[in-house]
Amino acid sequence: MALIEKNIGLYTDHYELTMAQGYFLSGMHEKQACFDYFFRKIPFEGGFVVFSGLSSVLEMLENFRFDEEACDYLSSIGFNADFIRFLKDFSQRVSIYSVNEGEIIFPNEPVLRVEGNILEAQLIETLLLNILNFESLVATKACRIRLAAGDRQLLEFGLRRAQGFGGINATKAAISGGFDKTSNVYASSLCGLESSGTMAHSWIQSFGDELAAFRTYARHFPDNCTLLVDTYDTLKRGVPNAITVALELQESGHQLAGIRLDSGDFSYLSKQAREMLDRAGLHEVKIVASNQLDEHIIQSLLLQDAPIDVFGVGTSLVTGKADAALDGIYKLSYFDGQPSLKISENIEKMTLPGIKNLHRFTDENNFFVADGISLAEEDDFETIFHPFAPEKNRTITGLQKEKLIRQVFKEGKATVQPTSPQQNAAFTHERLKQVPEEHKRFLNPHVYKVGISGKLMKLRDQLAGKYL
Amino acid sequence: MALIEKNIGLYTDHYELTMAQGYFLSGMHEKQACFDYFFRKIPFEGGFVVFSGLSSVLEMLENFRFDEEACDYLSSIGFNADFIRFLKDFSQRVSIYSVNEGEIIFPNEPVLRVEGNILEAQLIETLLLNILNFESLVATKACRIRLAAGDRQLLEFGLRRAQGFGGINATKAAISGGFDKTSNVYASSLCGLESSGTMAHSWIQSFGDELAAFRTYARHFPDNCTLLVDTYDTLKRGVPNAITVALELQESGHQLAGIRLDSGDFSYLSKQAREMLDRAGLHEVKIVASNQLDEHIIQSLLLQDAPIDVFGVGTSLVTGKADAALDGIYKLSYFDGQPSLKISENIEKMTLPGIKNLHRFTDENNFFVADGISLAEEDDFETIFHPFAPEKNRTITGLQKEKLIRQVFKEGKATVQPTSPQQNAAFTHERLKQVPEEHKRFLNPHVYKVGISGKLMKLRDQLAGKYL
Repeated sequence: MALIEKNIGLYTDHYELTMAQGYFLSGMHEKQACFDYFFRKIPFEGGFVVFSGLSSVLEMLENFRFDEEACDYLSSIGFNADFIRFLKDFSQRVSIYSVNEGEIIFPNEPVLRVEGNILEAQLIETLLLNILNFESLVATKACRIRLAAGDRQLLEFGLRRAQGFGGINATKAAISGGFDKTSNVYASSLCGLESSGTMAHSWIQSFGDELAAFRTYARHFPDNCTLLVDTYDTLKRGVPNAITVALELQESGHQLAGIRLDSGDFSYLSKQAREMLDRAGLHEVKIVASNQLDEHIIQSLLLQDAPIDVFGVGTSLVTGKADAALDGIYKLSYFDGQPSLKISENIEKMTLPGIKNLHRFTDENNFFVADGISLAEEDDFETIFHPFAPEKNRTITGLQKEKLIRQVFKEGKATVQPTSPQQNAAFTHERLKQVPEEHKRFLNPHVYKVGISGKLMKLRDQLAGKYL
Repeated sequence: MALIEKNIGLYTDHYELTMAQGYFLSGMHEKQACFDYFFRKIPFEGGFVVFSGLSSVLEMLENFRFDEEACDYLSSIGFNADFIRFLKDFSQRVSIYSVNEGEIIFPNEPVLRVEGNILEAQLIETLLLNILNFESLVATKACRIRLAAGDRQLLEFGLRRAQGFGGINATKAAISGGFDKTSNVYASSLCGLESSGTMAHSWIQSFGDELAAFRTYARHFPDNCTLLVDTYDTLKRGVPNAITVALELQESGHQLAGIRLDSGDFSYLSKQAREMLDRAGLHEVKIVASNQLDEHIIQSLLLQDAPIDVFGVGTSLVTGKADAALDGIYKLSYFDGQPSLKISENIEKMTLPGIKNLHRFTDENNFFVADGISLAEEDDFETIFHPFAPEKNRTITGLQKEKLIRQVFKEGKATVQPTSPQQNAAFTHERLKQVPEEHKRFLNPHVYKVGISGKLMKLRDQLAGKYL
């Protein structure tokens, strides 16, 4: 993911730097602070989010510097000379504690916390939000599409509709969320993914004659040939021509890999095409569908028994469409020995103070039951409370307890091995087996319980009382 | 915009490379081709699109190469050795003809065309779509927000919710579309933009005491101080504390730049805050609002006479939200001496064949009346026809005619000076004066007429007849 290697310190909002300068010039910059990363609303009207982007963030933080060029730039736009001198020797010394990449997470959970001095912990806010919010969004979408598609093959086709260079993050996150391959060669080369693709309509058009186009392609790629069949007329021309070529390939000892439908009614066309292929004895030739797909359309197609073996998904996956952003935020919870909170005009947006931990409670069958947020110093607690309706609470004695957070970054270095997108996907795949079905369904999923400990609630209410 | 400088040839979908290899191995790769870039649907239910991203594309094409590293990678994933040897010496020799960056464009217009051999023209499809689609989307959104905000200041605040590295393209396009400044320091350093920002809630929280936080910031930035007033309670604490600091600044010969509202009802809060500031004689202190804004909310706030001077816009601008992608495509229109078209399952998606030009017709007051697409060899034509309802047509004699397309790239080099985002914005600003109001309104804008010449229609129908 090393797309940005130089001047990473500039990959930030301007105000992180003005605040850093303010702390520095006030001599406050070595005071210790803790920030939490959490989101508030699950996208896609879903029941969970897949945490993604941690490896990208850690890699960027290992290279977090203000190079000569960056310092000159900051000087040119008016930052203070002493502060810039300080930045020249700056390296990231924060400690980061996080859930695993690929973890299933829920609203308001502090899934990652940053401890360090206020200057260094503040400076990375924008970078962290930019990467975690987007990669988690796309991994979540990919995971939903994976749930809809079962074990059919999933190809990410989004680069042409991706948000500029964000297409690189999108591809990585799509594989983390459970996609098999991508069309994106650049991201594949950066992240060790498998890319694939065969032909566009222009290939067919350039031959004028569809059969000649198919034959030429098959000649050059006899063992990896998927023919696009909708350039002129899918059932009248495209599929019959593909069958001709498939039979010719058979004669020379090869096998047509597939045909691709890229327009029209996929349920109808795939059934007709399957029948035509089967009648010609071409049972092994796969049907690929691509064009404006998402988890809902795939689910519907499979409910209609559309015999589609491979789905190519682009825009909805790599942009999230209507849910184009995860609303993750980064809030100060502790400063200079004191827990801290923000109140805001909307009481439900009040933050949770103090250095905290996150626990998951599972039942005897290993299913997730609830998550609990406590103060880090709490060894044990028996009840978790709804954050804003304490009369809603539950005892968690008798359940298994898992600590979700561990240290991942220390003294400028990642303390965990970077995980590949494929490893993230495998982790998520296993974790999803522990999630009860009612949280995974697309329509009105059941809300997963996330509670806070009694001690944390008391601390928050005490602090809030000072301002309300 | 030189974020990606190396291995740009890999910034592509896999199938562009398999097709290129197929053309190369078939000895077809020097045949001449022409591709059109156009979009079909205007995002945001709007009446126009602002064309953006051309400078970024031209810069990437000037550096379009397959470096040693890229060639090794392609070899490792199975591409043909002769083909890779060919790529090693490859440079982009296509000719590109385009409308100006910042031009106001409409559906189905071939606003950019690429001429060259089929291999080189095909290879750049994904790069071109990735950049033009996204930058045009964001520039269009920014332009709509500019229309709503009049001459109030607009700040782009989106990096934390942007789609990963796409935040860089987004910032550039936001300025092209008419925004004044951005929070994004990295994009500013790459593209020569002005960044700005002051403080987050964490700054206030870290002092515990809001007044102390404001005072410290004002001490370090006395001439560029905008205070965030909603950390605890906007009207009871934030604004009164800001007024205290503003008066202290006055005593030392400085002036508070502004206060920023970041939550709550902006209409109510801004009116109350304005009154409080004015009562203290602080008429020059500006009110900044930021949080989930878009063109509709800004229009509504201004209709309510909310005294807001500066708007900070993030998520909706940098992602487009529900309209997260422009549907621009790149279609072969000409190959080896012959016009070409694609039919598809949906007749309205039939493409326009041949090498074409794009003309704009304006009335005696210089207002846009209609655009016309013709064959490039047509010197003159008197009538334009609706592409799918030829009974709808209009004579364009007597109108002024402007050719919109000019050469911008030749033999590996841009033939036009790259334009800065600020220059693009100035061009769009002037062009918008020529657009009748009914195309600019947000609710049900009038559809702008784009017609085709009689000759082009005849050619298309003739060719389509071969396949239908």
